[in-house]
Amino acid sequence: MKKVGILGGGQLGRMLLQAAANYPVETFVMENDSECPAANLCHHFAKGDITKFEDVYAFGKGLDALTIEIESVNEAALEKLEAEGVLIYPKPAALKIIKNKILQKQFYKAQEIPTSEFVVTTSREALLQLTDFLPAAHKIGLGGYDGKGVELLRTSEDFSRGFDAPAILEKLVTIKKEIAVIIAVSNSGEIRLYPPVDMVFDSRLNLLDYQISPADLPQNLLWKVEAIARKVVKDLQSPGIFAVELFIDDKDNVLVNETAPRVHNSGHHTIEANYCSQFDMLWRIILGYPLGNTNHIFPAAIVNLLGADGFTGPAYYEGLQEVLQIENAFVHIYGKKETKPGRKMGHVTILSREKQELIHQANRVKFGLIVKSQ
Amino acid sequence: MKKVGILGGGQLGRMLLQAAANYPVETFVMENDSECPAANLCHHFAKGDITKFEDVYAFGKGLDALTIEIESVNEAALEKLEAEGVLIYPKPAALKIIKNKILQKQFYKAQEIPTSEFVVTTSREALLQLTDFLPAAHKIGLGGYDGKGVELLRTSEDFSRGFDAPAILEKLVTIKKEIAVIIAVSNSGEIRLYPPVDMVFDSRLNLLDYQISPADLPQNLLWKVEAIARKVVKDLQSPGIFAVELFIDDKDNVLVNETAPRVHNSGHHTIEANYCSQFDMLWRIILGYPLGNTNHIFPAAIVNLLGADGFTGPAYYEGLQEVLQIENAFVHIYGKKETKPGRKMGHVTILSREKQELIHQANRVKFGLIVKSQ
Repeated sequence: MKKVGILGGGQLGRMLLQAAANYPVETFVMENDSECPAANLCHHFAKGDITKFEDVYAFGKGLDALTIEIESVNEAALEKLEAEGVLIYPKPAALKIIKNKILQKQFYKAQEIPTSEFVVTTSREALLQLTDFLPAAHKIGLGGYDGKGVELLRTSEDFSRGFDAPAILEKLVTIKKEIAVIIAVSNSGEIRLYPPVDMVFDSRLNLLDYQISPADLPQNLLWKVEAIARKVVKDLQSPGIFAVELFIDDKDNVLVNETAPRVHNSGHHTIEANYCSQFDMLWRIILGYPLGNTNHIFPAAIVNLLGADGFTGPAYYEGLQEVLQIENAFVHIYGKKETKPGRKMGHVTILSREKQELIHQANRVKFGLIVKSQ
Repeated sequence: MKKVGILGGGQLGRMLLQAAANYPVETFVMENDSECPAANLCHHFAKGDITKFEDVYAFGKGLDALTIEIESVNEAALEKLEAEGVLIYPKPAALKIIKNKILQKQFYKAQEIPTSEFVVTTSREALLQLTDFLPAAHKIGLGGYDGKGVELLRTSEDFSRGFDAPAILEKLVTIKKEIAVIIAVSNSGEIRLYPPVDMVFDSRLNLLDYQISPADLPQNLLWKVEAIARKVVKDLQSPGIFAVELFIDDKDNVLVNETAPRVHNSGHHTIEANYCSQFDMLWRIILGYPLGNTNHIFPAAIVNLLGADGFTGPAYYEGLQEVLQIENAFVHIYGKKETKPGRKMGHVTILSREKQELIHQANRVKFGLIVKSQ
C-alpha cells in the first residue's frame, strides 16, 4: 500500500480520510492539534507544525506522496521532498504561485488570464497614492484565509484599514455572479471539470453562505467559465484538485478571482451530488487511478455551518434534530470540540431537482441550525 | 460527545466509522487484530477478544453505547453492561435469539412468522431418523458465518456431512427469489424500511454474488415482504439496524430465512443509492437523532469482491483500473492486507435507472476485477 501524507488536519483532511477508506492506502496526517478533525481517521498521526521546515521534511521523508489541505505549509520542505522523489499534490511550484496573492495575480496577468485590475502595494503608506483606484479590495500577499487578510477600501478614509505589508489592491468590479469550478488534473495532465457552482457570500465574514450546483449560466458564459478555469490549471502545470473562483461582471466579462490548489469548500456537495466526489478524485490522482466521473447525480445546495456570533466554547448544535428530519439533507458535522464566531463547524448538502426546493431547504438549515456553545 | 464502541473491526466497522465522521461522536473499536479494516478510523482502538467476557466488559464499561458488527460476541458481558446502563444495539435479548439458529427458528414459529419447516437436531446420529425430511439444509446452531456452518443434505448419504452439534434441519423450499430488507428501529420503536433488494447467491460459497435494489416485486408480494419483515423486528423488541432475509417460493409464499441484527452486506448500496445509508442510520439511532430517509435516489446493484480461489497472501486488485473507469460504479476496497479464497475484500456499487445496465456493469465488475495475491 502507498503511504500518503496530508499536511493539515481540519475538515478537508477529515473528508479526504473518509474517502480514503475506499482504497488501499496507508494514511498520515500532520497537524499541531492532536484533537483536530482528521487526527482519528488516519493510520498515523504526527503532531507537528506544518509551517516549519524540519517538521514537514521529517513527516514527508519516506512517504510516497504528500498533499495539503491548507496553503500555509512550508514550501522549502516540499521542494526538498519533491527533489528527493516524493510526489507532491499540488507541485510546490504551483503552490508558490497560488499561496502569495501577489504572485497569483501576476501569474494571471502573465498568462493572459482575465482578472480584475490590480496594483501591488508594499506598505500602508503606498496606498495613499492610489485614491483613483478606489473602490478596491486590499488583499494581503501571504497568510490570508477565510476572509482574514482582505479589506474593502471604498474611500481614502478606509486606507487606515489597509495592510502595512506586501499586498495587492484590486479594483472592485460590479459582480453579477460568483462562480466556482472544481477541476481535477491527473499525473499525465488529463483534466476533468466539475459542473460550475453558483456561490452566494456572507458579506460580513466573506465566507461562503450557500451555493447551488450546477450554476445557472447561459451556454456562452458556461463555455467561457470552463475555458478560463481550464486554462488556469493548465498553466499551473500541476496534478491535483483545484478550485477556481470567478466573477461574472455586469458586462458578462468572466474574471478569475482566485484559485485554491486543493479540495475546497465549494466542492463539498460532490460527496453526495456527483458520481466521484472531489475527495475521491484526489485519491484517484494520488494513487494513479483513472479520473472519476464529475457529472452530477442531482442538483445540490450547500450551507456552511459557522460558529454563531457571541459563542465560544464546547460546541452545541441547536436545531440539529429538526435539520436531520429534512428528507433530502445530508449533515456533516466536523467534530470540532470548540466553536467560535465564524468557525467552520460543518456543512449541510441538500439534493433536489427543483431550485426553489434547494433554496427553501438551504434557508431552513441556515436559520434553523445554529452552532452555539454549551 | 457520546462515547460509542463497536465490537469487531471488519469492513462493517470500517464503513460505520466512515459514516460516524459526519457526527460529533467519540468512537471506540475492539478487535483481536490491530491491522483490521476499522482500526485506523476510530478515536480509540482496543486489542481484545470480542468473545471473552473480561475483554468485552472492560471495553464497554464507561461507554454510552455499544454496537456490534458481528454476532459472535460475548452476550453475558453485554447483558451486564446493559444492566449497568450502557445502551446496546441490538439489545442482548434480541442478539441471543438471532445468534443461535435454533432459537431464531423457534422464535419465528412462536411469533407465527412464516418460515420453512424445520426440526432441531442435537447430533449427527439424530439425522438418521430424518430421511423423510430431505432434501434439507443443515445449519449449525452457533458459530455459522458467511456460508460456514451450512450443509445441503439431499439424500441420506449426505448425512455424514451433517453437524454433530445442536443444529436445525430446514426443509428445502423451491426458491423463486431471495429478498433482503434492511430495517431501522429507533429507541422509541419507530420503524423505517429500506426498499427490499433482490439477492443472487454464489451457490458454492453461499455468499452474496450480486444484488439489485429495489427488488422487482409485484405489489402484493412487496406488501407481504414488508409486513413480514416489519413483524420480525417488531417482535425482536430492540432498536438498531436489522437485515431480514426472505425466500419467495414457487407458490408465492414469503418465508423468513434469517435475520441479522446489524448493518449488513445487502445494504451496502445504501451508501450511494439511498438518502440515508444503513451506516448513517445506525448512528442516528445510537445518537438519538431522528431516523433518516430510506428512499432510494437511484436503483443500484452491488457486487462483492471476494478473494479469488488459489490466492492467499498480500492482496492485489487485478482489473481495478478498468473498473474505476466505469462512470457509474463506486468502488469500496476494505484495506485488508491479506487475501484468501472467498474472503470479502471489497464491494462495488453501480447506479442506473436501467436494470439491464445494472446487470451489465455488475457482470463487468464480477469478471473484470479479481482479487489475487502479489
